[in-house]
Amino acid sequence: MSRNVPLHGVVAYPITPFGPDGGVDLPKLRSLVDRLLAGGVHGIAPLGSAGVLPYLSDEEREAVAEAVVSQVAGRVPTLVGVSALTTERTVHHARFAERAGASALMVIPTSYWRLTDHEVFRHYEAVADAVSIPIMAYNNPATGGLDMTPEFLARLLEIPNVTMVKESTGDVNRLHRLVQAAGEDVAFFNGSNPLALDAFVAGATGWCTAAANLIPRQTIEVYDAIRRSDLPAALRSFRRQLPLLQFLVRGGLPRTVAAGLEILGFDPGPLRLPLRPVSEAERGELKEILAGLSPAEVS
Amino acid sequence: MSRNVPLHGVVAYPITPFGPDGGVDLPKLRSLVDRLLAGGVHGIAPLGSAGVLPYLSDEEREAVAEAVVSQVAGRVPTLVGVSALTTERTVHHARFAERAGASALMVIPTSYWRLTDHEVFRHYEAVADAVSIPIMAYNNPATGGLDMTPEFLARLLEIPNVTMVKESTGDVNRLHRLVQAAGEDVAFFNGSNPLALDAFVAGATGWCTAAANLIPRQTIEVYDAIRRSDLPAALRSFRRQLPLLQFLVRGGLPRTVAAGLEILGFDPGPLRLPLRPVSEAERGELKEILAGLSPAEVS
Amino acid sequence: MSRNVPLHGVVAYPITPFGPDGGVDLPKLRSLVDRLLAGGVHGIAPLGSAGVLPYLSDEEREAVAEAVVSQVAGRVPTLVGVSALTTERTVHHARFAERAGASALMVIPTSYWRLTDHEVFRHYEAVADAVSIPIMAYNNPATGGLDMTPEFLARLLEIPNVTMVKESTGDVNRLHRLVQAAGEDVAFFNGSNPLALDAFVAGATGWCTAAANLIPRQTIEVYDAIRRSDLPAALRSFRRQLPLLQFLVRGGLPRTVAAGLEILGFDPGPLRLPLRPVSEAERGELKEILAGLSPAEVS
Amino acid sequence: MSRNVPLHGVVAYPITPFGPDGGVDLPKLRSLVDRLLAGGVHGIAPLGSAGVLPYLSDEEREAVAEAVVSQVAGRVPTLVGVSALTTERTVHHARFAERAGASALMVIPTSYWRLTDHEVFRHYEAVADAVSIPIMAYNNPATGGLDMTPEFLARLLEIPNVTMVKESTGDVNRLHRLVQAAGEDVAFFNGSNPLALDAFVAGATGWCTAAANLIPRQTIEVYDAIRRSDLPAALRSFRRQLPLLQFLVRGGLPRTVAAGLEILGFDPGPLRLPLRPVSEAERGELKEILAGLSPAEVS
Repeated sequence: MSRNVPLHGVVAYPITPFGPDGGVDLPKLRSLVDRLLAGGVHGIAPLGSAGVLPYLSDEEREAVAEAVVSQVAGRVPTLVGVSALTTERTVHHARFAERAGASALMVIPTSYWRLTDHEVFRHYEAVADAVSIPIMAYNNPATGGLDMTPEFLARLLEIPNVTMVKESTGDVNRLHRLVQAAGEDVAFFNGSNPLALDAFVAGATGWCTAAANLIPRQTIEVYDAIRRSDLPAALRSFRRQLPLLQFLVRGGLPRTVAAGLEILGFDPGPLRLPLRPVSEAERGELKEILAGLSPAEVS
Repeated sequence: MSRNVPLHGVVAYPITPFGPDGGVDLPKLRSLVDRLLAGGVHGIAPLGSAGVLPYLSDEEREAVAEAVVSQVAGRVPTLVGVSALTTERTVHHARFAERAGASALMVIPTSYWRLTDHEVFRHYEAVADAVSIPIMAYNNPATGGLDMTPEFLARLLEIPNVTMVKESTGDVNRLHRLVQAAGEDVAFFNGSNPLALDAFVAGATGWCTAAANLIPRQTIEVYDAIRRSDLPAALRSFRRQLPLLQFLVRGGLPRTVAAGLEILGFDPGPLRLPLRPVSEAERGELKEILAGLSPAEVS
Repeated sequence: MSRNVPLHGVVAYPITPFGPDGGVDLPKLRSLVDRLLAGGVHGIAPLGSAGVLPYLSDEEREAVAEAVVSQVAGRVPTLVGVSALTTERTVHHARFAERAGASALMVIPTSYWRLTDHEVFRHYEAVADAVSIPIMAYNNPATGGLDMTPEFLARLLEIPNVTMVKESTGDVNRLHRLVQAAGEDVAFFNGSNPLALDAFVAGATGWCTAAANLIPRQTIEVYDAIRRSDLPAALRSFRRQLPLLQFLVRGGLPRTVAAGLEILGFDPGPLRLPLRPVSEAERGELKEILAGLSPAEVS
Repeated sequence: MSRNVPLHGVVAYPITPFGPDGGVDLPKLRSLVDRLLAGGVHGIAPLGSAGVLPYLSDEEREAVAEAVVSQVAGRVPTLVGVSALTTERTVHHARFAERAGASALMVIPTSYWRLTDHEVFRHYEAVADAVSIPIMAYNNPATGGLDMTPEFLARLLEIPNVTMVKESTGDVNRLHRLVQAAGEDVAFFNGSNPLALDAFVAGATGWCTAAANLIPRQTIEVYDAIRRSDLPAALRSFRRQLPLLQFLVRGGLPRTVAAGLEILGFDPGPLRLPLRPVSEAERGELKEILAGLSPAEVS
């Protein structure tokens, strides 16, 4: 069975910049998209965790989806986050993103009450039925509050247009088990930054990462090294960027990526409350890490 | 310091009934409120987890708050849930509920990205500043995704109109530690059903429970027995209702309470997707449990 | 069915004092036993965790069992720890303790490799078959590395002379579930110090505690208050001693009890390596806690 | 600093065979050692978890150490497990193993009471002071009950003859953090079978495994493929043996390796109680797995 998998390599998650009035700053978002494309990333994924999806109103979500897809303009594929707590809202956003021209959709079943497997399966089915573009099933219990096993994810892949999995638990054994359950040609993406190297070794099709906002070339370096089976180069590159990846995870993506962009000369605007900027000490630490990675860009 | 603590005893959490069109069924909600009051509960708390707060639109939330407060009409105090992911939306709902006549507000800091203590504290401060009625700080990492220690909760109680704590971890040591950190006159409420007896023994002011939708008199029985220091009666009553409390926790409040209401002759309407009804086997189990507790009401 | 349950109330766990040569100091152990009996405890349990059972050689274990049982001399019942990693060694120590005159035996299935339920059940059966005195099945995953559910513990109680359960997880729900699974007349003992009050409220027959080495009268106070259903007195007494109970759990029993005994004027000798004394800061904290509880005894 | 690291590659952990009388079967153990060496393994490690170290008496431990070291006779290096609960016993076994001719010692700080970092550090120091051969610090909270962070392990490596680390948590991030803390030339070994591939990718010096009892050549295959940077071959080999590695972890090493040896025609004798054989269903599953890996040897 040949399945529609439009993404591969480094899939970059832009943050959502806000203006002084607290609203989404769409021109700045478009400029961030261009910056990511200039860095060479293989795909763009608006409305992820880094993009504070759950903090946006329906109207803001639609504006972001439209702005990013039109700015990318087919230069690379786009993966648009359409998750919502209810099935009805998820279907609504999925349809909107498809009409806006998204290449694929990402869906994480955000739980408040723990959902049963049956409820999650039917939720994915309802979304998949409502669109015809491919869907990436996304597992991240740390943010979504719900854990899908590799075996359950393999079942989701039996829904015709659920063609990709994104795994963010950071447990490499899950990736190996997914391959066991879904077969060696399963298209899976890693969303845990410190697992980037291991996921590619395990056969990941791509790396979904907000780190590309700060170090696009280095994230691609690991992917390229693995593709030519140059393990020493991959390990060397991964070890160099690991302190940054760990910093992002420790401090939370929206805060740390915003701080990093500012250090690199790109003003991302204020965070949306309750999120607040990283501390001065963290900012100093991040500046040092970035200076080691991109000396020319850190002023 | 004398603090404004308008609630005590059994604080009942009505579910939110939906109509055949999928919208909130306000007349049925009003009728459920009357049913709870007839059962003798000491307070009514709309827009909690049982009320699927996170699944409602802003407009639905406002309609529910208004309907419940006006239906209660001062017969008992009301505690209205106003949590939202962003500070701006939480403040919005807090102000609305105050205008609608709520006696107090419940706020749980729902995290997507893990919030820092500083962010959570400032979030509560912002909400507290926006209203003048008392606020209950609510800790429930299982649904909110964020864990506040007893010591941090004690710090929140230093904000003038944060006067109550609701603890739902189910760990009785947390309650004892809260008393150690905040003093013996701290007003705390238990939100973990299977901990009802122990929380009252530890000095809880009240029990926040959706079980009151099904067995209002029995939930009050435990409270009354402890107040007159009749430990054997309290233990006897608690042990009788424990299978129901465990069933509610195991199956999730919205599903199980809806099933129970139906068994007791009150049709709650459909659940909002992705939530789906309990299985036939669970329904049978619940029917048996309820028949043992309220034989006259189970047909 | 009337079962042989020789223990109730406060069951005190003496530490094992060591001499300057590193060996067990039996005269000091006998003197500690007298001290505990003078404090009024209802049972004595040598060779528990506080007695560093796993750190003793077979010969030392036998000497301790013999010394304690003969020193108690029937004044209260004795509960002798006989756990070992292999079934053969456990049976050996069980037989020895029975011959030495123990009233009952405590057995925790210490796992290295995770044991199956079947293996644990057969282990208890083998020990029970080898003796005719009653056995207490002890669950403490934090030290034993193996967790027995309340439902499994209820199954163990079907072995004729397994007549008691000791639960040390600190989760009061386990106690309620044990009653559900084994019936209201089940004899269970609590081994988690900060759960002392709640366990008695839940119907515990006794409290297995090393705190009795330091504050025997206060531990008995809680038990007595609950027996006469005086909840306010029980809560008051429990809250007073809670800081000590928390300190013991935080710092580990052998270290903290030894430090406390020394503060109270009873020199327990050195600890057995790798255990080392509490820090000076911890010692100061403990002295302050004890001065609040037993002012006359702290010099 | 050039450090003494005598081990590399696949370090095989023989089980300890028992005779019909329940004692250790030394001739069979010697024959198992020869079998492992014939399989091409790079080191032999008696008295590990697979060898049920904690189930053996002091005399049995000494007999096993002596038998294995003399049987290996310098053909490959030996790594002898000398862990015990007390420092005194650990030093005793360390000295014995050194005299017996061990190449290196493995020490895991088995905790009953949670040890402080200071206690663990001094424990390692005491053992290291007592011998002059190199020591491998071993972290495995699942069996030892105590978790040493990568940063703490790096501190242990500052003790002169603690020259190696074995990590068995199965979390690849720990390995990367160890390299960050201890430098890129740190000699670390992986003890989590399902992490074999990732650990080598992360730079592990060796793989400590009981799987070599059953599939020595395949375990070596992964190591060799990584050394020549042939990622596809490494992944292919790893995926083939993964079902076996998962089976061993799921069922526990002593039971599953014994069952596997029997299937392969090597009778390991009975297990020591409380351990009991795998079920018939598990045995069938294992037979099928092994038939896929070593068809010629499964009868």
